[in-house]
Amino acid sequence: MRISELSAATGVSVPTIKYYLREGLLFEGVRTSPTQADYADEHVRRLRVIRALIDSGVSIAETRGVVRALEDPPPSPHDLLGAAHAAVTAHFDEDVDVSAAEPLVRRLGWQPGICDPDVVAGVARALQAFDRAGFDIPVDVMTAYLDSVSLIAEAEVAGVPTDSPDAAVRYVVLGSVLVEPLLLALRRVAQQVASARRFGVSAS
Amino acid sequence: MRISELSAATGVSVPTIKYYLREGLLFEGVRTSPTQADYADEHVRRLRVIRALIDSGVSIAETRGVVRALEDPPPSPHDLLGAAHAAVTAHFDEDVDVSAAEPLVRRLGWQPGICDPDVVAGVARALQAFDRAGFDIPVDVMTAYLDSVSLIAEAEVAGVPTDSPDAAVRYVVLGSVLVEPLLLALRRVAQQVASARRFGVSAS
Repeated sequence: MRISELSAATGVSVPTIKYYLREGLLFEGVRTSPTQADYADEHVRRLRVIRALIDSGVSIAETRGVVRALEDPPPSPHDLLGAAHAAVTAHFDEDVDVSAAEPLVRRLGWQPGICDPDVVAGVARALQAFDRAGFDIPVDVMTAYLDSVSLIAEAEVAGVPTDSPDAAVRYVVLGSVLVEPLLLALRRVAQQVASARRFGVSAS
Repeated sequence: MRISELSAATGVSVPTIKYYLREGLLFEGVRTSPTQADYADEHVRRLRVIRALIDSGVSIAETRGVVRALEDPPPSPHDLLGAAHAAVTAHFDEDVDVSAAEPLVRRLGWQPGICDPDVVAGVARALQAFDRAGFDIPVDVMTAYLDSVSLIAEAEVAGVPTDSPDAAVRYVVLGSVLVEPLLLALRRVAQQVASARRFGVSAS
């Protein structure tokens, strides 16, 4: 298909497609003339992934990292997932004491060497914010968090497709980036439902 | 205590405390002379809440909304929680079709009239990103999300303190704002643990 058809198929404007081509996010089509190239379904799929990432607030640089993991996938699926995770995980310049998070992440089955350190640092940083605020999470609530994220992660990882690296990375990256706002939004609805139940508000 | 002691007790610099006073985030101390005021433990607590919010990326305007809910709490605890939620919930200018989210949020026990519409709009917006990416959440995974957020919200709302509006709002607001990064970070650790288990990586 031509670039105009690629644009129509994805809803991404031609200038934006050209920008992604220049930035190396989208691979080139097959040249059919000095000014034209032919694009395939593969371009449609890749463009949808790029759009989803950028619409979700992922930077151009992070998107490039994801695209790179897609194009040159590491041999083990676990490493592939790690690379995809790393591409969308914040790197903290600030020093955090990672050991503060260890007792908690051990309850998730964490052991040294199986996780990206940035991921554990994310937990430590979140706990630090609670310390600074002088706010303790009740024991029962923390148990609910740990049980819930384990339940979620088991279901998610069981669903990782193993037929192609492309499908696996797409699943992990979109699963990380797009699911986060969904989970947080669902939690707020569930909180208001639980609050209405506890404090006796009835439906209008 | 003097402003220098308030600063020492909270780790917030004197110029920053003065800025919060000017912005109306922190209430004034009791004047003891034209240039001095006396601050109480109440100021320490409020300053910790303000710091926690701002450190978590909440804007000055949103923080002011939370402070207002603390100072003039609505009569029903459910409305109080709603006000605290609203203060830290994004308002979307973009039109989203909220009805697209209704089948999903009904599975959480949602009914018309019991939730802030912005909260349901957040779900609709998150689902829209999946649509745009052409990515479907597997049925089992979605069920895990819904079960998990219900489990979390039940535990959280059961823990809402009812002894004072201040304690309740502090719990809800910090629970919303500080818990989000924690939950997301814990989910990433749990994913890597589950991935190591499924794809056979052992601890180092």
